[in-house]
Amino acid sequence: PDASVDLARAARCGFPEVVFGEGKTAEQIRDVFTAQRGAGQRGLATRVSDEARGLLAGQMPDAVVNDLARTVRFGEAKREIGFVPVLTAGTTDRPVAEEALETLRWMGVRTALIADVGVAGPHRLPERLPEVEGADAAVVVAGMEGALPSVVGGHLSCPVIAVPTSVGYGANFGGLAALLGMLNSCAANVVVVNIDGGFKGGYVAGLIATGANDRELDR
Amino acid sequence: PDASVDLARAARCGFPEVVFGEGKTAEQIRDVFTAQRGAGQRGLATRVSDEARGLLAGQMPDAVVNDLARTVRFGEAKREIGFVPVLTAGTTDRPVAEEALETLRWMGVRTALIADVGVAGPHRLPERLPEVEGADAAVVVAGMEGALPSVVGGHLSCPVIAVPTSVGYGANFGGLAALLGMLNSCAANVVVVNIDGGFKGGYVAGLIATGANDRELDR
Amino acid sequence: PDASVDLARAARCGFPEVVFGEGKTAEQIRDVFTAQRGAGQRGLATRVSDEARGLLAGQMPDAVVNDLARTVRFGEAKREIGFVPVLTAGTTDRPVAEEALETLRWMGVRTALIADVGVAGPHRLPERLPEVEGADAAVVVAGMEGALPSVVGGHLSCPVIAVPTSVGYGANFGGLAALLGMLNSCAANVVVVNIDGGFKGGYVAGLIATGANDRELDR
Amino acid sequence: PDASVDLARAARCGFPEVVFGEGKTAEQIRDVFTAQRGAGQRGLATRVSDEARGLLAGQMPDAVVNDLARTVRFGEAKREIGFVPVLTAGTTDRPVAEEALETLRWMGVRTALIADVGVAGPHRLPERLPEVEGADAAVVVAGMEGALPSVVGGHLSCPVIAVPTSVGYGANFGGLAALLGMLNSCAANVVVVNIDGGFKGGYVAGLIATGANDRELDR
Amino acid sequence: PDASVDLARAARCGFPEVVFGEGKTAEQIRDVFTAQRGAGQRGLATRVSDEARGLLAGQMPDAVVNDLARTVRFGEAKREIGFVPVLTAGTTDRPVAEEALETLRWMGVRTALIADVGVAGPHRLPERLPEVEGADAAVVVAGMEGALPSVVGGHLSCPVIAVPTSVGYGANFGGLAALLGMLNSCAANVVVVNIDGGFKGGYVAGLIATGANDRELDR
Amino acid sequence: PDASVDLARAARCGFPEVVFGEGKTAEQIRDVFTAQRGAGQRGLATRVSDEARGLLAGQMPDAVVNDLARTVRFGEAKREIGFVPVLTAGTTDRPVAEEALETLRWMGVRTALIADVGVAGPHRLPERLPEVEGADAAVVVAGMEGALPSVVGGHLSCPVIAVPTSVGYGANFGGLAALLGMLNSCAANVVVVNIDGGFKGGYVAGLIATGANDRELDR
Amino acid sequence: PDASVDLARAARCGFPEVVFGEGKTAEQIRDVFTAQRGAGQRGLATRVSDEARGLLAGQMPDAVVNDLARTVRFGEAKREIGFVPVLTAGTTDRPVAEEALETLRWMGVRTALIADVGVAGPHRLPERLPEVEGADAAVVVAGMEGALPSVVGGHLSCPVIAVPTSVGYGANFGGLAALLGMLNSCAANVVVVNIDGGFKGGYVAGLIATGANDRELDR
Amino acid sequence: PDASVDLARAARCGFPEVVFGEGKTAEQIRDVFTAQRGAGQRGLATRVSDEARGLLAGQMPDAVVNDLARTVRFGEAKREIGFVPVLTAGTTDRPVAEEALETLRWMGVRTALIADVGVAGPHRLPERLPEVEGADAAVVVAGMEGALPSVVGGHLSCPVIAVPTSVGYGANFGGLAALLGMLNSCAANVVVVNIDGGFKGGYVAGLIATGANDRELDR
Ligand SMILES: Nc1ncnc2c1ncn2[C@@H]1O[C@H](COP(=O)(O)O)[C@@H](O)[C@H]1O
Ligand SMILES: Nc1ncnc2c1ncn2[C@@H]1O[C@H](COP(=O)(O)O)[C@@H](O)[C@H]1O
Ligand SMILES: Nc1ncnc2c1ncn2[C@@H]1O[C@H](COP(=O)(O)O)[C@@H](O)[C@H]1O
Ligand SMILES: Nc1ncnc2c1ncn2[C@@H]1O[C@H](COP(=O)(O)O)[C@@H](O)[C@H]1O
Ligand SMILES: [Mg+2]
Ligand SMILES: [Mg+2]
Ligand SMILES: [Mg+2]
Ligand SMILES: [Mg+2]
Ligand SMILES: [Mg+2]
Ligand SMILES: [Mg+2]
Ligand SMILES: [Mg+2]
Ligand SMILES: [Mg+2]
Repeated sequence: PDASVDLARAARCGFPEVVFGEGKTAEQIRDVFTAQRGAGQRGLATRVSDEARGLLAGQMPDAVVNDLARTVRFGEAKREIGFVPVLTAGTTDRPVAEEALETLRWMGVRTALIADVGVAGPHRLPERLPEVEGADAAVVVAGMEGALPSVVGGHLSCPVIAVPTSVGYGANFGGLAALLGMLNSCAANVVVVNIDGGFKGGYVAGLIATGANDRELDR
Repeated sequence: PDASVDLARAARCGFPEVVFGEGKTAEQIRDVFTAQRGAGQRGLATRVSDEARGLLAGQMPDAVVNDLARTVRFGEAKREIGFVPVLTAGTTDRPVAEEALETLRWMGVRTALIADVGVAGPHRLPERLPEVEGADAAVVVAGMEGALPSVVGGHLSCPVIAVPTSVGYGANFGGLAALLGMLNSCAANVVVVNIDGGFKGGYVAGLIATGANDRELDR
Repeated sequence: PDASVDLARAARCGFPEVVFGEGKTAEQIRDVFTAQRGAGQRGLATRVSDEARGLLAGQMPDAVVNDLARTVRFGEAKREIGFVPVLTAGTTDRPVAEEALETLRWMGVRTALIADVGVAGPHRLPERLPEVEGADAAVVVAGMEGALPSVVGGHLSCPVIAVPTSVGYGANFGGLAALLGMLNSCAANVVVVNIDGGFKGGYVAGLIATGANDRELDR
Repeated sequence: PDASVDLARAARCGFPEVVFGEGKTAEQIRDVFTAQRGAGQRGLATRVSDEARGLLAGQMPDAVVNDLARTVRFGEAKREIGFVPVLTAGTTDRPVAEEALETLRWMGVRTALIADVGVAGPHRLPERLPEVEGADAAVVVAGMEGALPSVVGGHLSCPVIAVPTSVGYGANFGGLAALLGMLNSCAANVVVVNIDGGFKGGYVAGLIATGANDRELDR
Repeated sequence: PDASVDLARAARCGFPEVVFGEGKTAEQIRDVFTAQRGAGQRGLATRVSDEARGLLAGQMPDAVVNDLARTVRFGEAKREIGFVPVLTAGTTDRPVAEEALETLRWMGVRTALIADVGVAGPHRLPERLPEVEGADAAVVVAGMEGALPSVVGGHLSCPVIAVPTSVGYGANFGGLAALLGMLNSCAANVVVVNIDGGFKGGYVAGLIATGANDRELDR
Repeated sequence: PDASVDLARAARCGFPEVVFGEGKTAEQIRDVFTAQRGAGQRGLATRVSDEARGLLAGQMPDAVVNDLARTVRFGEAKREIGFVPVLTAGTTDRPVAEEALETLRWMGVRTALIADVGVAGPHRLPERLPEVEGADAAVVVAGMEGALPSVVGGHLSCPVIAVPTSVGYGANFGGLAALLGMLNSCAANVVVVNIDGGFKGGYVAGLIATGANDRELDR
Repeated sequence: PDASVDLARAARCGFPEVVFGEGKTAEQIRDVFTAQRGAGQRGLATRVSDEARGLLAGQMPDAVVNDLARTVRFGEAKREIGFVPVLTAGTTDRPVAEEALETLRWMGVRTALIADVGVAGPHRLPERLPEVEGADAAVVVAGMEGALPSVVGGHLSCPVIAVPTSVGYGANFGGLAALLGMLNSCAANVVVVNIDGGFKGGYVAGLIATGANDRELDR
Repeated sequence: PDASVDLARAARCGFPEVVFGEGKTAEQIRDVFTAQRGAGQRGLATRVSDEARGLLAGQMPDAVVNDLARTVRFGEAKREIGFVPVLTAGTTDRPVAEEALETLRWMGVRTALIADVGVAGPHRLPERLPEVEGADAAVVVAGMEGALPSVVGGHLSCPVIAVPTSVGYGANFGGLAALLGMLNSCAANVVVVNIDGGFKGGYVAGLIATGANDRELDR
């Protein structure tokens, strides 16, 4: 097959390899999924093109396709574990948040979406803070100036995974403004992933939530 | 004299020319001040070296020297007009804030310093908000991720002049992170000046506060 | 509804929330407008796609659509207040200027367009200066090297809001050249907004013009 | 006092405010420490100048000063909790690693230093992997091309906090090369902090290790 | 003819001029090939558009067209000489690897493709190392963080030609992340070519493999 | 001798090689001058350190040393030819202007310094325009936003050589802002040289002034 | 009319205003041409879209349309004056060279195209040097590393106007590599214009060739 | 000992580990040398501080110290093998060239220095070409625009290792201009290393010269 797959990753790293769908055909992705299914593993592909998502939806009866997130996945987690809320600054950050949410669902982590609580409306976040209580980690998705993770970080005691988005224009330079802002966050509990990196934001938050010790047992 | 001065600026622009002190000797600055004094104008020099500040303090009995701000000025405004608070995110942003404050005092504008209210301590700004009531404009000085102007902007109805500072390290790239963050602010009332541009931040806020109509009358 | 709206912003910040239309459907924008209309507020959406503008024009009889500006708005200001001229360097900067003009009209501010007075034709600006007399603030829109705000700033005593545009090619790097030029303006009364940020340029100029004190009374 | 301190942070965020020592005098730092001591809190200052470290060591009998890390701290954690190894690519990355280690010790987390295991000597990491067994999170410090976090990430199932350093020359552009490399890591469990951000790397790893639930109990 | 050709290059540099196909028509490329054929030279064109490749395939019976590599070539090397393996980090780096492979085949060098051995699966490279035994040079193609050349370089004693690709998104900035990583490689035997520069990577590796002395004799 | 010199350049290019003094000792520079004197050529060295200038002044009785320009030269032009004014935006741009002036004097071109006519004082340039009448080319030196060349270009029919300087701070990024501004000038007669490139600015203006045809005859 | 025109420019600057055609309709361009024709001026428009060129060709019988250059012009120069050769490094730099050539023809300057003499074929330039003899200035167009202007500059005594192009890929960053190379040219007679700035390259070379003194007389 | 050393590298990679001396004390370097001496290996340290070089010279009787190159080495190669000339563009590039030369000498490769043959003096390189005859590879060191490797590459059939230097000022951006130029070289045989990377340039050229097959036998 054209696209090889690292079946050992589940044992070594706790979860199976996730397919980077950019530039891959439905066939290439399905080949990986078939191999994973054969090894008793769950599967997730991110950044899948519209065409490939359509074809995979038709071929795989148990495929969970999320068009906003541009993901395809299959296989159920044994039980729900931990809690990771996903917060967004504006309406337009939604697709990246969805990629994080799909990744967390695939990992078996309980999630919540708290959308459109950016700092321009400062009363909105405090109103929603009760919903993030008990979080093991929070994923905060923001474009433009990317200020939300710092503010969320100031309210929480758990790690905050900041995901800059390319939302905005002009001097946002494709997400660079948000990225630099988050890297320089004055809140001590904020770490950062790549621009539009919803997958990785969700994945690391999920690792924290499932916890080092519980990992072996459940999967 | 080596450094020429634009004495017509007071009539044309409302305030006398301000000396950009970087790389200038005490003698060059004093020459400008002497010319301005002769024309009945007040004087302000910014980014003045330690040595030049010391010499000017010795030579001009009415010099107001601010070592934190690195400014020298002389001449009193006729009366106090308007109100512009200056807010800082962290302790280290103080010198840039002082440059803005000195500029505002020289313009005759009432000021207040609200220091160290950065977003990592989210309860600090709300506690101090009563002190900014009645502001004609606010100057917000912040380094690192530069998130404070967006948050202040969300609370106020007046213009916010955001001043990015070079405070921070690594991926702050000498203030670039704060600058880009402020330019991409999702708060609609935020405008931006150069990195470490305390003078210009104070000056434009002062222009707004003194108001277009009152300007001719008072000076 | 999919897109939430911050109805409290009008009371807190003086004007209702403005919709960032980029990537939003006509339906999402109309939902916000309906909520705002219900709360007795005026509405403005910027960066609205051609398709969404067409649909909104059909659905809302009182919609004011500006195709050059890519804006949609509804609701009349109670009375005209203040004066903000909008100047452009070249013919191609017009769309960004229109976004500023629409924002000012929506705020109820008197405006004037002074187009194509860039520095390559140095006689053009002086000829038109009488038209900016009495301005509370000026919005200056320029691409390429972005020199116009400095020149305008040298002639006026009011604040100048500089709006860099992405007009140009090669080493303009999508508006970066104009942006950096404006941030480093040697004119003391120049502040800057994002590249192509006609909305914010108009908005802050409008805030200055309506004046901090008059704001509560009129809207 | 000149430098204010956010004493509420310990309750809100799990650990007391950490002093950003850059540009601060011994006196400013000691004022914060005195306030924290008065509130029964432990204290940590990072990026403290040589002079300030010397003065603080003389004034505070219980100060733990680390010259390589440029840190000063006081106060003992009640008991050791969790395990976070710190790995470095080369000998020159040591100071940043020490800052992470000091932060972890101050948080009460068990640590281990695994130095000089960069990818140019590919046999070195596998030999030391047994020492990272049981890690709750790993901090990986690397300059130059910053490849080590990806390789470590491929071996571990826990989160990897990547800390780029400014070690190198030429096209490392002060740590930019390592930073970009880490942000684009193909290993799914890698998150990133600022260049030379040993403190934040250690802090977030420490948060993961102490665990959301245990935090309230112990401090 | 519209596109001139440097027929002397074969004598001077060991191999004929290679056509940079970007922006060239099939006709322009064929003119060069005809001139080269007339001079008894082999021909290679890279970065050829889909349309031009189709036309050239129809017009030249002995054309070897590689659609993945976007190359067209003709003419056989007299005998196979040397050995250069081409390694890739991920599935998506394949097209750039193919361009290197085609160049090596055109030069008469024996090759091998070792695909998808990126550092996120650390066991994969060691398993395949026997296949690179005896290499005169290795071409290593990688996008994202570009860590693979450093790891390969640590295992081999021959020169490693690192080829960064634009594969990835966000802060990969079109291949900049991989490029900077490779330039800062801590492995002493790694040299770098342009982003997506499969041709040059293959060409220099081929020069090393054919060897300075053998060059004159065989072609 | 340690530093070689290209004595053929005078015949080939119209003027002798100019020594790039950065990092060179007085001895290295004097060796070049001695060789040039021997060949009947004039000599010029730029960017000469304070120490080297002092030594050369002591050793060469006919040395013309300019401390502001950091140049050393010897040898008289046969007659004055052409006219090139040098204009500066601010007082601090003077050293770069002096380097241009020294280069022009060494070439035998008549010059004039028109200092401190930046755009923030818009009346200053028009007042001085009569002094540039008859110019063969103009050198315009400016830092910060670098707007002056565009304005000068709009008034003149001769070529304008724009020299960006590193004068400024913050987002001037060491002269980048002025450089980009000048490259994007909307005035059609503006060409650009390197940041702080007073030498090259003066040299090319001098070439234009001396005229292609007259060059052979006079030197 | 929608697009204004600066008819005074011909008197002030020696040549009429040139239309920047990017983003302009055929109608807007024709309006300017009509005004210029009415004032007895010649006309030139650059960067004209395919559609607008087609329409203008149909409407203006005397239009000279160059599809490679994307220019439209009308009006004959009174007589040919001066000589400016245009050199290109590679075949793909041709369109930018054509824009320079059209500009020179419109100015009435004699030209010659010397194409494809880049440094990779070092014998090519010396062979063609006789063709540039007598040049008043040379325009050198190059992409990729942009080395050709330095080499040409080393051979000639007249000014060299270097025009970087966006030809290339990867780390050429849209022409940045060539631009920076040319700005740092070690040849003293090289000045630079914007990336893909064929118009300005040709224009300034034309100004030099027509000569300051002859300008008034001939047009 | 504080600095560990990878003694296995000689067997794995053909040559012993080279010490990156930046930021290391004489003691740290001597520890590595002692370990290498004990293992029968030769030693080389680069980027060694003035102080450390002085101390090492005093302590190690067989140390070969090169102050220009900032290197220290010990141990003789068994016999001379291959030939690698090192060329520089200007006098100021010498220190980087010396680092390459020292590395080659330590590897036992015959070298030659061909200095100051930059493209501004185009006759200089052809005159010296006979001296590079028979080269297995060439190292070309250049700052400013970095054009020399392309020109050298056009003359030779062997690989050219281009080493950009930080020599220059302004828009050279610390060597970035030369680096980008070299990466975009239109000569097919040019590969690139880090800015000021004399060591790596010499090392890879040395690997090519010693040849893959001969390596095991001789050391
Ligand atoms: N959206 C994503 N962003 C970054 N990395 C990803 C993404 N999705 C999958 N990956 C990683 O990509 C690698 C697979 O790449 P490939 O071999 O090209 O399919 C795996 O190691 C995943 O961890
Ligand atoms: N053209 C614009 N540029 C920048 N910000 C805008 C623009 N139009 C609206 N906004 C802001 O965008 C925010 C709404 O974003 P959203 O929730 O995505 O609709 C509001 O706070 C507005 O102040
Ligand atoms: N200030 C300067 N800026 C740029 N190039 C210069 C300068 N002064 C001299 N040069 C050039 O530097 C070259 C000599 O450099 P070098 O061989 O290092 O002595 C000559 O080609 C001069 O044209
Ligand atoms: N290709 C071009 N590149 C840069 N500037 C140009 C170009 N063509 C025309 N111009 C300039 O653009 C200005 C006209 O701009 P506009 O008013 O938008 O038509 C004139 O001042 C010309 O000098
Ligand atoms: Mg919203
Ligand atoms: Mg604080
Ligand atoms: Mg115009
Ligand atoms: Mg080591
Ligand atoms: Mg894979
Ligand atoms: Mg001045
Ligand atoms: Mg060619
Ligand atoms: Mg020289």
